[in-house]
Amino acid sequence: MPERSFLSDILQRVAVGARLSRGKTAVDIGTLCDELLSDKGEASGLATAMQILDTFESLENDKQAAFFMDIANRFGVDETALQSAISGWKAGDDYAARKLHYAAEPKSQELIRRLNRVPGATARLVTMRSVLLEHLKTHPELSGIDTDFRHLFSSWFSRGFLEIRRINWSTPAEILEKIITYEAVHEITGWDDLRQRVAAPDRKLFAFFHPAIPTEPLIFVEVALTTNVSSAVGSILARDRTPINPASATTAVFYSISNCQSGLRGISFGNFLIKQVVSELAAELPALKTFVTLSPTPELRKWAESLAGAELTDLMRESIANAKADIPPTMIAEITARYLLLAKRASGTVYDPVAHFHLGNGAILHRVNVNADLSPQGIKNAWGVMVNYLYDGKKIEANHQAYATEHQVAASPEVRVMAGLPKKLMGDKNV
Amino acid sequence: MPERSFLSDILQRVAVGARLSRGKTAVDIGTLCDELLSDKGEASGLATAMQILDTFESLENDKQAAFFMDIANRFGVDETALQSAISGWKAGDDYAARKLHYAAEPKSQELIRRLNRVPGATARLVTMRSVLLEHLKTHPELSGIDTDFRHLFSSWFSRGFLEIRRINWSTPAEILEKIITYEAVHEITGWDDLRQRVAAPDRKLFAFFHPAIPTEPLIFVEVALTTNVSSAVGSILARDRTPINPASATTAVFYSISNCQSGLRGISFGNFLIKQVVSELAAELPALKTFVTLSPTPELRKWAESLAGAELTDLMRESIANAKADIPPTMIAEITARYLLLAKRASGTVYDPVAHFHLGNGAILHRVNVNADLSPQGIKNAWGVMVNYLYDGKKIEANHQAYATEHQVAASPEVRVMAGLPKKLMGDKNV
Amino acid sequence: MPERSFLSDILQRVAVGARLSRGKTAVDIGTLCDELLSDKGEASGLATAMQILDTFESLENDKQAAFFMDIANRFGVDETALQSAISGWKAGDDYAARKLHYAAEPKSQELIRRLNRVPGATARLVTMRSVLLEHLKTHPELSGIDTDFRHLFSSWFSRGFLEIRRINWSTPAEILEKIITYEAVHEITGWDDLRQRVAAPDRKLFAFFHPAIPTEPLIFVEVALTTNVSSAVGSILARDRTPINPASATTAVFYSISNCQSGLRGISFGNFLIKQVVSELAAELPALKTFVTLSPTPELRKWAESLAGAELTDLMRESIANAKADIPPTMIAEITARYLLLAKRASGTVYDPVAHFHLGNGAILHRVNVNADLSPQGIKNAWGVMVNYLYDGKKIEANHQAYATEHQVAASPEVRVMAGLPKKLMGDKNV
Amino acid sequence: MPERSFLSDILQRVAVGARLSRGKTAVDIGTLCDELLSDKGEASGLATAMQILDTFESLENDKQAAFFMDIANRFGVDETALQSAISGWKAGDDYAARKLHYAAEPKSQELIRRLNRVPGATARLVTMRSVLLEHLKTHPELSGIDTDFRHLFSSWFSRGFLEIRRINWSTPAEILEKIITYEAVHEITGWDDLRQRVAAPDRKLFAFFHPAIPTEPLIFVEVALTTNVSSAVGSILARDRTPINPASATTAVFYSISNCQSGLRGISFGNFLIKQVVSELAAELPALKTFVTLSPTPELRKWAESLAGAELTDLMRESIANAKADIPPTMIAEITARYLLLAKRASGTVYDPVAHFHLGNGAILHRVNVNADLSPQGIKNAWGVMVNYLYDGKKIEANHQAYATEHQVAASPEVRVMAGLPKKLMGDKNV
Repeated sequence: MPERSFLSDILQRVAVGARLSRGKTAVDIGTLCDELLSDKGEASGLATAMQILDTFESLENDKQAAFFMDIANRFGVDETALQSAISGWKAGDDYAARKLHYAAEPKSQELIRRLNRVPGATARLVTMRSVLLEHLKTHPELSGIDTDFRHLFSSWFSRGFLEIRRINWSTPAEILEKIITYEAVHEITGWDDLRQRVAAPDRKLFAFFHPAIPTEPLIFVEVALTTNVSSAVGSILARDRTPINPASATTAVFYSISNCQSGLRGISFGNFLIKQVVSELAAELPALKTFVTLSPTPELRKWAESLAGAELTDLMRESIANAKADIPPTMIAEITARYLLLAKRASGTVYDPVAHFHLGNGAILHRVNVNADLSPQGIKNAWGVMVNYLYDGKKIEANHQAYATEHQVAASPEVRVMAGLPKKLMGDKNV
Repeated sequence: MPERSFLSDILQRVAVGARLSRGKTAVDIGTLCDELLSDKGEASGLATAMQILDTFESLENDKQAAFFMDIANRFGVDETALQSAISGWKAGDDYAARKLHYAAEPKSQELIRRLNRVPGATARLVTMRSVLLEHLKTHPELSGIDTDFRHLFSSWFSRGFLEIRRINWSTPAEILEKIITYEAVHEITGWDDLRQRVAAPDRKLFAFFHPAIPTEPLIFVEVALTTNVSSAVGSILARDRTPINPASATTAVFYSISNCQSGLRGISFGNFLIKQVVSELAAELPALKTFVTLSPTPELRKWAESLAGAELTDLMRESIANAKADIPPTMIAEITARYLLLAKRASGTVYDPVAHFHLGNGAILHRVNVNADLSPQGIKNAWGVMVNYLYDGKKIEANHQAYATEHQVAASPEVRVMAGLPKKLMGDKNV
Repeated sequence: MPERSFLSDILQRVAVGARLSRGKTAVDIGTLCDELLSDKGEASGLATAMQILDTFESLENDKQAAFFMDIANRFGVDETALQSAISGWKAGDDYAARKLHYAAEPKSQELIRRLNRVPGATARLVTMRSVLLEHLKTHPELSGIDTDFRHLFSSWFSRGFLEIRRINWSTPAEILEKIITYEAVHEITGWDDLRQRVAAPDRKLFAFFHPAIPTEPLIFVEVALTTNVSSAVGSILARDRTPINPASATTAVFYSISNCQSGLRGISFGNFLIKQVVSELAAELPALKTFVTLSPTPELRKWAESLAGAELTDLMRESIANAKADIPPTMIAEITARYLLLAKRASGTVYDPVAHFHLGNGAILHRVNVNADLSPQGIKNAWGVMVNYLYDGKKIEANHQAYATEHQVAASPEVRVMAGLPKKLMGDKNV
Repeated sequence: MPERSFLSDILQRVAVGARLSRGKTAVDIGTLCDELLSDKGEASGLATAMQILDTFESLENDKQAAFFMDIANRFGVDETALQSAISGWKAGDDYAARKLHYAAEPKSQELIRRLNRVPGATARLVTMRSVLLEHLKTHPELSGIDTDFRHLFSSWFSRGFLEIRRINWSTPAEILEKIITYEAVHEITGWDDLRQRVAAPDRKLFAFFHPAIPTEPLIFVEVALTTNVSSAVGSILARDRTPINPASATTAVFYSISNCQSGLRGISFGNFLIKQVVSELAAELPALKTFVTLSPTPELRKWAESLAGAELTDLMRESIANAKADIPPTMIAEITARYLLLAKRASGTVYDPVAHFHLGNGAILHRVNVNADLSPQGIKNAWGVMVNYLYDGKKIEANHQAYATEHQVAASPEVRVMAGLPKKLMGDKNV
């Protein structure tokens, strides 16, 4: 019988056989999941898993939602086993606690693990979760299943498994095409624009990949090599600029970071990527002394126009209310400095999500730039403001600790003064 | 400050800084683990994790045991949280059940997950578990930690992540060297012997690798292409044999399967590997019709000499007791057939572990060969007996199901008769 | 002194040193060539060669012409040596004949050989020749130098050194970009058009590369997999078409062949490429039965409008003279058939260069298609006509021999009749 | 008709067809060569070339000699054409000179070029020449053919085509196996010895490859990283030594250079290889300051015992004649220094071939070491003497020029004094 499709063939026979032996002929996807979980043999399991993935991908959107709901209902915890494990546990019995842990595991988690046995399944499960996240918006009852995915993905996409790659003009087109699609901060308008960003000698692009999904970037960062801290993105993206010799660059500007896989939401890679790229660039180009971002403040106007309170002066609030886009540049800078330094969430961390990300990584709030992003999007969100965060290897840890433990924000004297704060924190040696 | 070691440098500062900020100067590895689990910042976590792995590897054997014991004591479940999660759960509340699941997770499991964030950590964790398994023999109280490792490894080494590779004479020497070391069934005596097994046109070797450990095979199988079902391993391993043209081979004999990583004990790959290799060979060499193993029965004599009961005749038992190695070949064959077909474990599965493995995969017990492995080891364990298991694509599933659900053993009429059973099972269509 | 640039450094010292030791400080490129030829040490030769290439590339166009002229004048044959070798030779003395051969070698040939010692020089020499070919148009006295280049290139770009590669969507962008640039038959309008031609399942693109110039294709062919012999290129290039399953294709249509390197003019690869691609496709897709081109007749109108004589009827000639583009389709087909079968060069081969190429490869003139290429170019050159040449493995050799030795043209009965010839050649078994 | 062997199939048909069309059925290899040269079609040429190579390789040794003789006789120059080209040439006519050059080319040269069109032919032609070189010893009349091979190889194996590769423990076994075979200076006794030489952190091995022969090294050099200039090879090859940290090494000792392909005799790569390796090591390990060889003097005793004259003192000659291996170490050193500095060939270059090679590359004769190679071979050839040649980037060019133009030998003061010469050359700044 040997033939090309031997393995697929076996897998199909096995799946069909498994069902026939249970007296069923036609099966729905929920039943397939049931079989996958109940089957003890790995051979038929693989075939069934493959069939579940194929079927899911062929379903229409509402049927996919129904599938998730079905899973959520059907493959929760085994309550009898859990009850018994609870009864069996008493404080101090770690063995019983582990039994309880496994007894309390929802069957849906094991279902996802078994689906992942199929070669190539990981990418398909990431896509499956991105569909799930869409449905989650209207079906909060799916949050349990989403927890299962996130828990497993956070283990499977551990930093230890990832590989960093340079993306340049000798990268395969199928990957470059995805970079165009996934750029989320400063749109790439086509192949010519892309060429500028990956093939110019003073531009670099780095991405993380998972070895089981070799043609799909997970996250990427775009870097411009310059001779000063950029204050506006226009000059970085300009088509007609003359590239500089990278060996003469003193500054690396991280001007865009994009997460690529919506199915990996909540799994964080950016922190690792920035530090890794700083490390690679520093090794390659010894003249580089300054590593800095040019970052958006996407929520600035939303905050200033509706959420701001005592952080702003009356005059500022009034200008915002009346003038909107015509506030004088100096005032915009001051509002931004106050927003970044004073606006806080209930948890005590800064309100701005981008600032929170970089401060949490140990960066310093270095400079506020007005008229830095004059795209319609940039005006609409932030009156054109962009911010530099500085990564200084000597201070990263102290900043990280101070922010993580005391929510203390590392900022340059210039920005502090702009926000109406004293030039330095008492006894601060870090900034 | 930028320099080659920027990243490592950051990592070290971060780790040292983290400790200093807590007022400690010297730390033991247990304290480092404590920090790794308590730290919320990922940057310092990575540095701490690296330091834990380095320190563990530098410890002497008894200190490593002490480390595991310390982990087991210190990083069990958080009992207060667990108690509260138990109180919060009632039947039907899947949300609370998930909370309970995570509350019952021993902290040691999260510790291993965080260690795996370090680039290259996976291989080091596999080695760590192999050390743990040694200590487990004398310290059963470490079984909980081992459960954590196995649980995570079974997820990280999912079939979907593995890649199959052909090992041949263009494989890097560092990998070939490991094949020599890891061969567990028929020792490879050196590079010349290895060359025979990987570079002869009628010999093949396939291995599974995990992409995060690219130079370490996980499991490999050795195949001889022949024109009949081999009845003895000597002719396969002979140095002076003349290779046949692989295109004229009708039979693929799987004469050796070796697991390479003791740290992955309990994570099963063999089943997938055999079927994948059958599939690849069938596609490449259409003349191949028969896929069969030549397998040992490592426990045969131990069983026959001390555990056998009604499965054997009085005459057999007497011959074994008196004659040992001088039992007539026909009787050895009959004893083996009875052993394989009739000797069972309490669970109802067959006693022989190799038979259990292949029958569980859906293979057929095809033939018993006497004088098949005349090495001292082969005589000592099994009077020189080896067994062929046949992988027949058409019957794999039915056999698998029959064995998995009813412990029904698929065997050729010849072997059944040899064991004193009727030629066929009533209504059996599989064999 | 060791440092990054050790080798370059040595090379430069060597070159400068070599000149200083001869008492010169500033040198022109001709003098450098002189040094390269006279120097016996390979070390300084390498440095000098590098400097010659660098200098040449920095010259303006007219200086490059002057350089070639200088070379032609300065590095001809060594006449004294040649005269002496002539005197030394008499019939039957092969040793003296070889001496004569080397004595008659122009020094410019050895100059090119020595330039090629520089790593990466081959690509630069190909470019140098493309410049030379431009100047040759106005400077016929450079034809000797061009002969040297062609002679060496034909040895260096021997079929045995070339490698075939499939170009697809996982090919690096830097190579794909060159495919866009080099397509000479049916322009590729951008990356989307390219994607159609290389990434659609029923489209293939194959190219030859030289291993010393790994990112520069030498020649490539584009193939469409179809279910019939295409009669027009529009349907092949249509953007909105639905791809077919390649496994169901019966016909491979070679619809474009482009030479990429003008510097390799006169070095022929197309013959080998087509046959290699036929071989690869036949192996991969067993359902493919027909291998056919869809080729232009770029000189048809030029010939018909000014060169045609007795090959055409009076009516035809009159229609051409009066109506030009409005000749009825049937007549266009007949004119084309007569052009391809009857118009000959002085040497006896067919007039049409594309027909000459395919007939010389052993293909059959299979079909004339009117309204096949309605692009402005297609109309202008050939009233929109395209031609299918059929590659039939069984007949290739006989056709090739018949054309090579007797200029006998293999054509389908249909085309022969169209040209007013008998349906078959007497005794012809090939078509 | 499409099938796997389409291309081979075509090629065979073509070859058979070509012969049939000439009315022949059985052909000898000489006739095939005749056909290859006369055929104008490239298709049948490729098939014929393939057949010639196959046939040659199947011939017995004496038939191969006969084949070469046949070629030499049959494919010399076309004398009529040559005579006519001679008549057509007069001084100043470069066009006619080129015609003469091509007319004087022996047909055997074009034959080799055409054979090289077959994919993979280059390696086979190298082997063919190694056979030829064996026969040349007894058949000097084959020297013309050998000239053809050498001429073409020197063009095909131009430095610009070669690639350097590091050989280490991740190199494929098939290449490592060849390193063991080809090591010509200090035998590699097996895989363990090889592992020492390529996998120890303070040992390096570099090789040149031609891209058309990717698994065959052409030449390789073995390097030991040390902290001083090694004076004996024993300590380098010792099995039980402790490797040093390569970053702390100050000296790179080139202790073995081996040419691998006897078929490439006369094509020189060593000069390029050493300089390239110096460059790579200097870039990688900035602490390396000294690049030096540890080289044999294979002809020392032969010269001293039978060829030496006034270069030695009477006492020296007497000691050699009487004592042979028991000459005191100081005298051996002095004899060696005199041998290396004073013994010359008729051309004025030094007598010792190894010294000639390194001096020609610009190295300095740095030190004579007695008791440096105590292997039987080392004693037999050179009383155990080995020599260090120093590659000093600052002096390479001046030394090269001085040796190339005036045969002036760069030697350290120590060695000069040892040879009874003044410490320095008048005005010498190089040593």
